[in-house]
Amino acid sequence: MDEIKDIDPKNIFSDFEHVGFQATNLGKAVKLIERMRKEKATIFLTFTANMVASGLRGIFADMCRRKLIDVVITTGGSLDHDLIRTEKPYLLGDFDMDDKELHEKGVNRIGNILVPNDRYEFLEKKIQPLFEKLYSKNKIVSPSEIAKAIGESVSDKNSFLYWCAKNNIPVFSPGITDSAIGLQVYFFKQKRKDFGIDVTGDMQQLASLALNAEKTGGMILGGGISKHHAIGVNILRGGMDYAVYVTSSPEWDGSLSGAKTKEAVSWGKIKESASHITVNGDATIVFPLMYSKLKV
Amino acid sequence: MDEIKDIDPKNIFSDFEHVGFQATNLGKAVKLIERMRKEKATIFLTFTANMVASGLRGIFADMCRRKLIDVVITTGGSLDHDLIRTEKPYLLGDFDMDDKELHEKGVNRIGNILVPNDRYEFLEKKIQPLFEKLYSKNKIVSPSEIAKAIGESVSDKNSFLYWCAKNNIPVFSPGITDSAIGLQVYFFKQKRKDFGIDVTGDMQQLASLALNAEKTGGMILGGGISKHHAIGVNILRGGMDYAVYVTSSPEWDGSLSGAKTKEAVSWGKIKESASHITVNGDATIVFPLMYSKLKV
Amino acid sequence: MDEIKDIDPKNIFSDFEHVGFQATNLGKAVKLIERMRKEKATIFLTFTANMVASGLRGIFADMCRRKLIDVVITTGGSLDHDLIRTEKPYLLGDFDMDDKELHEKGVNRIGNILVPNDRYEFLEKKIQPLFEKLYSKNKIVSPSEIAKAIGESVSDKNSFLYWCAKNNIPVFSPGITDSAIGLQVYFFKQKRKDFGIDVTGDMQQLASLALNAEKTGGMILGGGISKHHAIGVNILRGGMDYAVYVTSSPEWDGSLSGAKTKEAVSWGKIKESASHITVNGDATIVFPLMYSKLKV
Amino acid sequence: MDEIKDIDPKNIFSDFEHVGFQATNLGKAVKLIERMRKEKATIFLTFTANMVASGLRGIFADMCRRKLIDVVITTGGSLDHDLIRTEKPYLLGDFDMDDKELHEKGVNRIGNILVPNDRYEFLEKKIQPLFEKLYSKNKIVSPSEIAKAIGESVSDKNSFLYWCAKNNIPVFSPGITDSAIGLQVYFFKQKRKDFGIDVTGDMQQLASLALNAEKTGGMILGGGISKHHAIGVNILRGGMDYAVYVTSSPEWDGSLSGAKTKEAVSWGKIKESASHITVNGDATIVFPLMYSKLKV
Repeated sequence: MDEIKDIDPKNIFSDFEHVGFQATNLGKAVKLIERMRKEKATIFLTFTANMVASGLRGIFADMCRRKLIDVVITTGGSLDHDLIRTEKPYLLGDFDMDDKELHEKGVNRIGNILVPNDRYEFLEKKIQPLFEKLYSKNKIVSPSEIAKAIGESVSDKNSFLYWCAKNNIPVFSPGITDSAIGLQVYFFKQKRKDFGIDVTGDMQQLASLALNAEKTGGMILGGGISKHHAIGVNILRGGMDYAVYVTSSPEWDGSLSGAKTKEAVSWGKIKESASHITVNGDATIVFPLMYSKLKV
Repeated sequence: MDEIKDIDPKNIFSDFEHVGFQATNLGKAVKLIERMRKEKATIFLTFTANMVASGLRGIFADMCRRKLIDVVITTGGSLDHDLIRTEKPYLLGDFDMDDKELHEKGVNRIGNILVPNDRYEFLEKKIQPLFEKLYSKNKIVSPSEIAKAIGESVSDKNSFLYWCAKNNIPVFSPGITDSAIGLQVYFFKQKRKDFGIDVTGDMQQLASLALNAEKTGGMILGGGISKHHAIGVNILRGGMDYAVYVTSSPEWDGSLSGAKTKEAVSWGKIKESASHITVNGDATIVFPLMYSKLKV
Repeated sequence: MDEIKDIDPKNIFSDFEHVGFQATNLGKAVKLIERMRKEKATIFLTFTANMVASGLRGIFADMCRRKLIDVVITTGGSLDHDLIRTEKPYLLGDFDMDDKELHEKGVNRIGNILVPNDRYEFLEKKIQPLFEKLYSKNKIVSPSEIAKAIGESVSDKNSFLYWCAKNNIPVFSPGITDSAIGLQVYFFKQKRKDFGIDVTGDMQQLASLALNAEKTGGMILGGGISKHHAIGVNILRGGMDYAVYVTSSPEWDGSLSGAKTKEAVSWGKIKESASHITVNGDATIVFPLMYSKLKV
Repeated sequence: MDEIKDIDPKNIFSDFEHVGFQATNLGKAVKLIERMRKEKATIFLTFTANMVASGLRGIFADMCRRKLIDVVITTGGSLDHDLIRTEKPYLLGDFDMDDKELHEKGVNRIGNILVPNDRYEFLEKKIQPLFEKLYSKNKIVSPSEIAKAIGESVSDKNSFLYWCAKNNIPVFSPGITDSAIGLQVYFFKQKRKDFGIDVTGDMQQLASLALNAEKTGGMILGGGISKHHAIGVNILRGGMDYAVYVTSSPEWDGSLSGAKTKEAVSWGKIKESASHITVNGDATIVFPLMYSKLKV
């Protein structure tokens, strides 16, 4: 049996797997991702919108640039933030700010990140012509088409949508209307009543990606619809071969967001034979550390 | 300033607001819901799918039966579970069960709740004719139409969809395809390629509900897309007048699921003048206790 | 296998064990405590100081009055709060108050509970004569002797120390000096340099209680030294026969506070054959609900 | 106002303060510790026993070796683990192991760290002669004397007790008897009935350290008695000047373990003018990352 090893102060991360507790899980996660890559698994990356509001966006963009992943599944809010931040920075605030005061100043808060209202005006100005363009071709579009259109319209190298568009990495967003983009669709439909988003339009492509892969892996950051959608589609092929979850949610409420990888095994969303690990902590700390240690 | 009061063992819940910590927040939440009702606010109830797999379903159904709430926003999984449980019970397991063994036996786990595979066969048998019927009228449907069709097809008095259909309470599900129903749509589309779900189809109705209300209130159980969709639409009217969150997620990761009510004030999703409270804990304990104390 | 049952709105808590998630665990905990009592187990009750600052104090006092438990293990802070609250109420504040402002006003905050500085002046006035009295008999005292002396000096029926003294329930506090009482000891020692607290003085009595019991049970609210001390002493007898934990701490950091009952089985702190359950949530909600359902 | 910056994949940790969420707090914590050091604050380091069972022990030892900190406050269990691990390694297990099976094999579990029973036999063999030696000089000893005696008896360079003894860094342990060492004291007292541990014996020294310091700082890892004791003694001087907490406990239950630094400001345990930050996450990930970035 392996021994717990004291951290070597001169080489702090050299053997994180033998530190114990979540350091162990982080160490295992790094190895798992390296294996996914080595075995050329089709890798599903999922994340929540707040992460795109944070500096993690730079890592997501880099992963898409390097084609380290094959599929992105995320929420509508991720598209909002990625698009806005191509030109307009978000600001660093504090979790304990006075929210009434912020509201009076027209500043929206996401934890300790601030988004002034003019960012959403910028979003409106950018997205309405895109909708018009999409609409001129098809009255009913799919979420991935919207994501692609945005990616093609921007040039920021820190945008994951930019790199996904450039590198033909599909971006799925099954709950896309629950976002500022959704609100813009509502406004757009005031004049173009027959514009619509058919969320079933992406199903075939997503299913094919799972079905045609020899192996699949998941890098699942946070919970919600993005997490579930990635593991859910893998039911079609008998489950993922590799899965890494990073979560801050507890398991004890039976929520999907807090469920560990092992729960997904019962469903066939992750294979019985799969290697999988759950790392508990905030993705803004856990994931950069994992990424910095990856040899891929 | 109010004093902390020792609980009276003969009348344990008589003054929960003065107990301190989350008991205080629960006590405040009960009063807030009573005020929402008294002032005839349009009330948005949101919950996550795992809660419908639990006994909370009985309370949700009762609230819809009594028309205590006006709008339901939830995930596709909630429709799955509500439909299946009209005829097939779920089973009580354990969080620490062997998931490989469960998978071999064809049993799916949600925390400590078990769903044998035949439940999903039942779902298939029920939902495919429903899709056929919907399709015969419209090739493109909205999530609320699916929810309504299910509600009209069942007779279980513990089904919230049954009561919503009967009492004309709309059920919105912006991420509906991320569910077993979504998987059934995928199968259905193999033969009916032009069937689709336009998630923008419910926007006008949802927006009108928010815009036309004199006051609005939220009873937001758990996080994810359902939580955000309810507060998000209230931006259109300058925010909810009342909001109660019940959550088990931490605030410190900047996630929407863990965000407290006050964060929504900065966005105008909850009004500056609103009364609002966040209760931390598992909804299966917190919400029944709240419901038992409600005088409405 | 048992089925999940929808909550009956007319009888909400009638079958909490079949609700799922933490409601199930709470339902099991109630039954476990009933069995402990039925089998006349020696019951160890532990709690943290913040709980004595809250309204839970009323339940603790009631349990000691009714002799439902046999041993109390808690922190020094619990003695502080119990003594002060015999005459001086604590106040209800808010988690988000301005702590600088509070400090300027001389008000100390425990979550949403406020303790004005004069409460600690009252503590000083009460405890110094008690120390003098104890010192006159023995220069070195044990924590349980201090707890007993406090209990004998007060007459508040909501004080657990009052009832413990009256009913000969020992109160152990192995970390007693880490508290306001500890600070008072520091001041007392300025004049009585040879006054001391021998924490090993209580060992024999505590060990005997564990060793002489036919069965033992634990009601462990919160974590820390009190939790560990109760299960730790039970190693001497091969473990507790019953254990109920109520906790808000996560398991994933390997902390004792977040450790579930099953971890204690590996140590022989809880027996392999024991019945035991961990309920996740805030004790101010979970424990009153458990207590209200107990048939003992 | 500062902007959120996307992480630069080539230099991932270069500007963690501008990443958002807990990365921001971690970035701030690093700077705070650098300032504590620069201003020659007397630094209190506290940690919980499970951390000494993990690889963090290597960092604690290094900090004591380099005299980066001035005072250690920890639990009895930390002394247990530090002593045992000078000669006997702990093993890497898994959170989900079968605890009954482990118990039958005589293996104790701390999260995913395993401690076979023979480790405690080793502890007994080492500690009894130490007690005998201490007893021969004084029948009543203080916790810091025990810690020092252990430190002087070992030669492992990864032992924090070794370096504390060598570098005259006092180790306080106000709850020392709640540990395996405490159990050994119980056995020792069977023959030496007048042996005792006076926990007030360390008070004067600890108080002097706080009172005589020009500035003080806290590096508070985890919660419990160690956390509180460090901030508690700083009341005597009007509070710490700097404080960094690393915690995995929630704030909402009003517990000391989950309390943020700001709560301590109301008490005068941290100064109104102090710089302080709370980082949420598992110390095995958060603290090595902080330590690796420290320029001191």
